[in-house]
Amino acid sequence: MSHQFAGIYTPIVTPFSADGAVDQRAIVSNVDRYLASPLTGLVVLGSNGEAAQLEDDESDVVIGTVRARVPNGRPMLVGTGRESTRATIAASKRAAALGADAVMARTPSFYKPQMTSENFVRHYTEVADASPVPVLLYNVTMYTGVNLLPDAVEKLSEHPNIAGLKDSGNDMLQIGDYLARSQPGFTVLAGAAPTLFTAAALGVHGAVLALAGLAPDLCVQLFEHVKAGRVDEARALQRRLMPIARSIGPIYGVPGLKAALDLLGLHGGVPRAPLRAVAPAVVDTLRGQLTALGLLERSHAAAN
Amino acid sequence: MSHQFAGIYTPIVTPFSADGAVDQRAIVSNVDRYLASPLTGLVVLGSNGEAAQLEDDESDVVIGTVRARVPNGRPMLVGTGRESTRATIAASKRAAALGADAVMARTPSFYKPQMTSENFVRHYTEVADASPVPVLLYNVTMYTGVNLLPDAVEKLSEHPNIAGLKDSGNDMLQIGDYLARSQPGFTVLAGAAPTLFTAAALGVHGAVLALAGLAPDLCVQLFEHVKAGRVDEARALQRRLMPIARSIGPIYGVPGLKAALDLLGLHGGVPRAPLRAVAPAVVDTLRGQLTALGLLERSHAAAN
Amino acid sequence: MSHQFAGIYTPIVTPFSADGAVDQRAIVSNVDRYLASPLTGLVVLGSNGEAAQLEDDESDVVIGTVRARVPNGRPMLVGTGRESTRATIAASKRAAALGADAVMARTPSFYKPQMTSENFVRHYTEVADASPVPVLLYNVTMYTGVNLLPDAVEKLSEHPNIAGLKDSGNDMLQIGDYLARSQPGFTVLAGAAPTLFTAAALGVHGAVLALAGLAPDLCVQLFEHVKAGRVDEARALQRRLMPIARSIGPIYGVPGLKAALDLLGLHGGVPRAPLRAVAPAVVDTLRGQLTALGLLERSHAAAN
Amino acid sequence: MSHQFAGIYTPIVTPFSADGAVDQRAIVSNVDRYLASPLTGLVVLGSNGEAAQLEDDESDVVIGTVRARVPNGRPMLVGTGRESTRATIAASKRAAALGADAVMARTPSFYKPQMTSENFVRHYTEVADASPVPVLLYNVTMYTGVNLLPDAVEKLSEHPNIAGLKDSGNDMLQIGDYLARSQPGFTVLAGAAPTLFTAAALGVHGAVLALAGLAPDLCVQLFEHVKAGRVDEARALQRRLMPIARSIGPIYGVPGLKAALDLLGLHGGVPRAPLRAVAPAVVDTLRGQLTALGLLERSHAAAN
Repeated sequence: MSHQFAGIYTPIVTPFSADGAVDQRAIVSNVDRYLASPLTGLVVLGSNGEAAQLEDDESDVVIGTVRARVPNGRPMLVGTGRESTRATIAASKRAAALGADAVMARTPSFYKPQMTSENFVRHYTEVADASPVPVLLYNVTMYTGVNLLPDAVEKLSEHPNIAGLKDSGNDMLQIGDYLARSQPGFTVLAGAAPTLFTAAALGVHGAVLALAGLAPDLCVQLFEHVKAGRVDEARALQRRLMPIARSIGPIYGVPGLKAALDLLGLHGGVPRAPLRAVAPAVVDTLRGQLTALGLLERSHAAAN
Repeated sequence: MSHQFAGIYTPIVTPFSADGAVDQRAIVSNVDRYLASPLTGLVVLGSNGEAAQLEDDESDVVIGTVRARVPNGRPMLVGTGRESTRATIAASKRAAALGADAVMARTPSFYKPQMTSENFVRHYTEVADASPVPVLLYNVTMYTGVNLLPDAVEKLSEHPNIAGLKDSGNDMLQIGDYLARSQPGFTVLAGAAPTLFTAAALGVHGAVLALAGLAPDLCVQLFEHVKAGRVDEARALQRRLMPIARSIGPIYGVPGLKAALDLLGLHGGVPRAPLRAVAPAVVDTLRGQLTALGLLERSHAAAN
Repeated sequence: MSHQFAGIYTPIVTPFSADGAVDQRAIVSNVDRYLASPLTGLVVLGSNGEAAQLEDDESDVVIGTVRARVPNGRPMLVGTGRESTRATIAASKRAAALGADAVMARTPSFYKPQMTSENFVRHYTEVADASPVPVLLYNVTMYTGVNLLPDAVEKLSEHPNIAGLKDSGNDMLQIGDYLARSQPGFTVLAGAAPTLFTAAALGVHGAVLALAGLAPDLCVQLFEHVKAGRVDEARALQRRLMPIARSIGPIYGVPGLKAALDLLGLHGGVPRAPLRAVAPAVVDTLRGQLTALGLLERSHAAAN
Repeated sequence: MSHQFAGIYTPIVTPFSADGAVDQRAIVSNVDRYLASPLTGLVVLGSNGEAAQLEDDESDVVIGTVRARVPNGRPMLVGTGRESTRATIAASKRAAALGADAVMARTPSFYKPQMTSENFVRHYTEVADASPVPVLLYNVTMYTGVNLLPDAVEKLSEHPNIAGLKDSGNDMLQIGDYLARSQPGFTVLAGAAPTLFTAAALGVHGAVLALAGLAPDLCVQLFEHVKAGRVDEARALQRRLMPIARSIGPIYGVPGLKAALDLLGLHGGVPRAPLRAVAPAVVDTLRGQLTALGLLERSHAAAN
């Protein structure tokens, strides 16, 4: 059974110029580095892309800038989730027109008591009916405070224009349920690097990982280990990746990721307020973690 | 000590036409009804106004439409919270230009682990520095999943352009802390009708209540009872209000409120998806609760 | 409507000798101090009495020791909650035989998913059927992790041998529901000093407060203020009590309470492991808070 | 590195006679069935043994009854956790005297805010210092509401008389941390059947599973699959086990387990109140789940 959009992706960050505008040149530079890596493709305007803080016109600039560099055959997935169904549809149509291979639509989440499985099913069905390109569901409870339950995913997996789902959580019961209850061919992507190994063991078809923006080779390698039955190697690699995975995820989030990118010569820069750049001591921690993985030369690390 | 913007407000809902556009005539009709009530003023683009689901141009239409009806001296507070500080500032400037007496800025909330008191203080300080009109903090944990702690409010209450706060929660410890720790003159408004009585007993200076859009006289009366030391009357009234307060708040939310408005001859209508109109059985429940309060004639109730 | 067991109580702590045994002389000394106060009565073997850490024979010693000092007409309530229904009944019978005026039975809590309202109703019904003295329900979610819902209390309030309930939480919606939905004459006692004022305003019939073991006069006074409609005085007193109320409750718990008792010349001593005595810096904090309330002389405070 | 007490265990339930007393004959019958299975050993007085609801003298009877059947070389682990350190030590000494190979001491949990890593380390250190037999830490957050963090386990794993830990949760990040941070030779046992496969992939050294009391061969087989690198087989078996694993765990708990044991001809019976026997419809569900696994003959299932 082939799974559309299976593979390892990184979400790209959105670098800003000194005046706070989207820095297209920095985006291009980052994208070119990733295109030279073994990554399957890129996610534009995900949570790590500060999508929630961008205006619609800025979002369009980001999509267009990336599309201009990414060749066909290398999937570009675009985040288009909004609070209202109509705005999600509008954003999805715009992204498709700008060349998205698929849209990844975060759950709406503001009116939490009303975010029932029934309402999620109706929302995503209307989005998928209207979207010119395939839709990927996107569940990111740590940020939204709502959860897209396996009940809803089971039903939505039957829609011909819903290709799969990304879940950014560490709940392996839920990941297992998505896999067990969705239709054949429905793609399940993990989104949390700290549980990449266990999710891979459970059989996810790929992952979207901020960590893959720092260590694309290692992330791809871990996933390949599991697919080839090299459980011990995969588990050992997961342990090595754990400190930096936690730093750029649950602990320091986007500001941590951006600082780590800067350390590697990619373009991170300062996040948009209310997010703030991490403190210098955190940069030191990140440098140590990247160095321990061989991603930074020790001498280079000292020089910084 | 006088408290700016003290009093009882209702947030206005945003009615939509059959084509999904903002229905300005319905807004005008609702506003005129409220202007004839004892309410202190109106909150435009709050959570109950489906602000999270409106586009910026729609928001401007709503503000302008209300402003055209509300006379000077009757405060019009406008919700302007966005995820980024710069977008919140931009929305606040626009609202001020359109005649807002103050802006009520919901906490940003997406990047939850980064929504620390330190970041909230910086965010609101920048917003207040830039806003042409006074700023009211707005904490609505049930929807945002983050909490604006008394630590942050204590500091922010010192800013000359931050006039007060609205908290929509039922945590009386927190409401008490806001009151005890903020600067003299800092206005604390309650936002949860089910704990209106206890919040009033604690000494809040007013409230912003969806319930006040259905029962403005009773809400004002309850608050006056407490101020005049008529604790028993206030407590008894709170109990009578409890069923409908719960229905249009934690249980059915905005869809419940809109249905109740329709029952009273105001304009609620269908909420914007992913919100959905409540089921007919819920309308019956609401009708019974409104009738029990004398807000609907029994015969009228039957006729419906 | 008279409410049995209405009034202000303190739970007594269980002091231990150097060898870890129950210190009966210390108990007697504490009890005699409380009998000279305006407190309505005493609660023996509550959470603050470290009941969860005492053996059955030790419990009997504590009950007997207190009963020997407390005159008839001064209610002695005894904690008898156990995990099983049969053990709760056995403890209640033993307490009654030793002279308890009523038993206060904490909810069982270990098998949390099975602690449904239905199971609570059956549990308490069986306990009340078997207990020779009246039963008070006891809900202390902060320690048990389960919650006795108003649904269950509504039903249980009909039982002729269930006299009332103590709830140690700060949820004013729940306290209000207990009051609104229980049978006439059913006594609701608050258990959280930080929300004593709001609970009193809501109409509770009394309170069981660790704070009343340190400041019995002030606790009784606060409650009387509310009953007499002196809302401003009550609110002001609540604010003064807040720091010590938090210290001996949510922050330092039983170890904090015991240290504060020692400062006042009562007998607290070292709690039983795994609880540990608070650090010296905490004792300083407590001394400052007691001094600010006039419970410790300033010179005396310095001398310590 | 050899890990003491590695392997697959089942916790034995405590059957009761019609009069509510411990049914020793039923225990013997169950134990004999398990001794004929490939299970490594037995856990006596765990959560599934209703230990929280048994008196000390009943506990001793259970231990003695089991020990009389279990040959040396087949580990018998005994639950001895109590709320106080001294009671835990006393229970551990008694269990050792009755022949326990190790004690498994559940965290104390009543005074939740005081259940810090520091207090847990002191508690378990004192227990391990005093216990005549090795100690296994036991973390069961779903029932206790407290969590034994990897920080504490890292330190405790250095104690020569602390052999390992059982964690009954589904948090794979925590299980991974226990493994990564504890001393070499420290045994980590999983306790949640729904995540047995992922825990095994992470490298746990065994498991204590109520499910192993129903399906010992399948549980052992799943674990062997993972150890031998047969990831696909293990994952497929996990999926087959999932429905019954959930039924006797998070959904119906001990009452569900006891009903399932009865269906298989083992002795479950009625749990002790406040637990109650499951409804007949639940028995039907359990029968279907056991039949689907081939543990019950279809004809037998029909006959029931």
